[in-house]
Amino acid sequence: MHDRMVGSDWQRARLGKIFKNLKGVDVIYIRNTQVQDPNFLYLTGFTSGLFEGTKLIATRKKTWLITSPLEYETALAQRPEGMKVIQYGGGAKSEKMLVSRLIRGKRVGANLSFLPFTYLKSIKEEFGARGVVDISNAMLGARLIKDESEIGKIRKAVKVTKRAMIEIQKYFKEGITELELAARFDFIQMSLGASGPSFKTIVCFGKNAAFPHHSPDNTRLKRGQFVLIDAGAVVDGYCSDITRTFMFKGASERQKEMFEVVKEAQLRAIAEMAPDKDGNQIYKNAKDFIDNAKGGKYMGRFIHSLGHSLGIEVHDGARLGGERTILASGMVMTVEPGIYVNGFGGVRIEDDVLITRRGIEIL
Amino acid sequence: MHDRMVGSDWQRARLGKIFKNLKGVDVIYIRNTQVQDPNFLYLTGFTSGLFEGTKLIATRKKTWLITSPLEYETALAQRPEGMKVIQYGGGAKSEKMLVSRLIRGKRVGANLSFLPFTYLKSIKEEFGARGVVDISNAMLGARLIKDESEIGKIRKAVKVTKRAMIEIQKYFKEGITELELAARFDFIQMSLGASGPSFKTIVCFGKNAAFPHHSPDNTRLKRGQFVLIDAGAVVDGYCSDITRTFMFKGASERQKEMFEVVKEAQLRAIAEMAPDKDGNQIYKNAKDFIDNAKGGKYMGRFIHSLGHSLGIEVHDGARLGGERTILASGMVMTVEPGIYVNGFGGVRIEDDVLITRRGIEIL
Repeated sequence: MHDRMVGSDWQRARLGKIFKNLKGVDVIYIRNTQVQDPNFLYLTGFTSGLFEGTKLIATRKKTWLITSPLEYETALAQRPEGMKVIQYGGGAKSEKMLVSRLIRGKRVGANLSFLPFTYLKSIKEEFGARGVVDISNAMLGARLIKDESEIGKIRKAVKVTKRAMIEIQKYFKEGITELELAARFDFIQMSLGASGPSFKTIVCFGKNAAFPHHSPDNTRLKRGQFVLIDAGAVVDGYCSDITRTFMFKGASERQKEMFEVVKEAQLRAIAEMAPDKDGNQIYKNAKDFIDNAKGGKYMGRFIHSLGHSLGIEVHDGARLGGERTILASGMVMTVEPGIYVNGFGGVRIEDDVLITRRGIEIL
Repeated sequence: MHDRMVGSDWQRARLGKIFKNLKGVDVIYIRNTQVQDPNFLYLTGFTSGLFEGTKLIATRKKTWLITSPLEYETALAQRPEGMKVIQYGGGAKSEKMLVSRLIRGKRVGANLSFLPFTYLKSIKEEFGARGVVDISNAMLGARLIKDESEIGKIRKAVKVTKRAMIEIQKYFKEGITELELAARFDFIQMSLGASGPSFKTIVCFGKNAAFPHHSPDNTRLKRGQFVLIDAGAVVDGYCSDITRTFMFKGASERQKEMFEVVKEAQLRAIAEMAPDKDGNQIYKNAKDFIDNAKGGKYMGRFIHSLGHSLGIEVHDGARLGGERTILASGMVMTVEPGIYVNGFGGVRIEDDVLITRRGIEIL
């Protein structure tokens, strides 16, 4: 359940951060579809319930939740102080009335990187807003710097996944399938307190590890193969994201070499991280390192970015590589270099790093 | 992996169904965000890979996939005949070139119930389309009537969940928590061949069963309590959705009565289902039945619709209740009446029903 100790101060602080980045917005309007807008969790803290189609309306200081009778009680039980929970009764009409009352004539901020066009249209046409402003960047910007409560939740999620990475090794045996191992991994994480995986668990044996986004299938484990597991847990709505690459029953020289190059690249990258550093430069350095390692043997084999911000979403608003990202205290970034060789396999090693005032902490 | 037996005929047939419902659309443009547009699976059949940000462009007869180097191989390995897979190389610019070449000057159909406004804007401004038409209803309409291959996949998913509902009863014991039971349920489903749960498994003990969308927590099971499990599996990208309500170690008269009223409501509803019947009427009849059962004791306690279409999504485009839905052969609908009593508990029973030419089949 929701962490009530912090009262509603956390919510006001978050609204303050968001509104600071906005001009000419009277109210924020968050609208879930069948999927929850990640900003919904950011402003409610709700960890129970689905809240499909639920609307959250917020000013700098106050929030209203307009939800179906189906989840009214669930909302009441978790609401932060100062949030008003309203249930709509008789279908779409009365819901329209409730929403209109709060946003008619107002300049409304909405998350246009999430909100489907259909619902965007209804803000003006159905609810009578005076105008709509995109708040997606303001929301992501606020979420990029985590507060203590958020860091605590990510810490818990990371702990679950790291522990599961140890436990899972008991189940490595010849003939087990990737799917069986993925199922076991998810089960271990949930037994350790996760509400679920933060994304579909990736398990790759042998040459399947050459595909960074391989979905586990019925491939069976053989001696001498890579076992690459990329997985995360959700705890209180926050994500972890960790990758480990194991060598099952004996590693070849080539496997060891790949592992060592990636491990070295990761350690170097982490050593460069600190407030005010540019994440894109750290990515470029890691890529250079891998491209030039072992006489250029792995040139062009590191085929994705070095990492990404982590939080309510697994990809939470910023990247290491491909864009300028100035690191700042309170950011949580994954660091995950890899080498992929088609027909042979791949190695990726990923940890979650908190940027602190003094430097970094590996979670 | 993808079912190759049907070649690309299934894909052409689906495109045919979609374009039949569209006017003035030259090409369809499906664009995944961090989430996959459900229509992406409908037109690719891909069951492996994430395909974040991947674009699918289709005419009546041809499809192009524009994807990152990260998933190029994964796409190639699964593509239906006649699909061209293109990887973009050097960042955003070259991707823009590839997409523009296919849609510049064209009238583009896009899923505006999924596509965030930001990406909608880019269709005209970045890729130079002549206009954009909403295809969300045409897509949902096509998907509402399942083909044989789709029914086969749903059948498999239902089989997994029904089997898991039997297996899970071995784990009912005093003191187990809802979260532990949910974790076990997910594990059983994956062991039976699911790639994951079709939504977050709902497990409710005792009075928690009064909340239809309760998230499992640390509540521990006691004698004489309801155990309500609402869960589904994903198999080859298709969903099941089943609810069972058990009474743990002895049922009170009140519990039995609630169970019997709901079971009777469900059987009556299923008996009414057939092609050309209106789903809303069947819902109303079920609601009347529950409202009037046992002298009106459960009046107003059935607080949601009677069911919904099932397929690639758990809520796949139509409902039983709240809107006119004329049943037709090839639809798959859940039938899930329930009774909820705050402070005491709830009963819901849900099965998945295929509408056939002759009537129905309970999957």
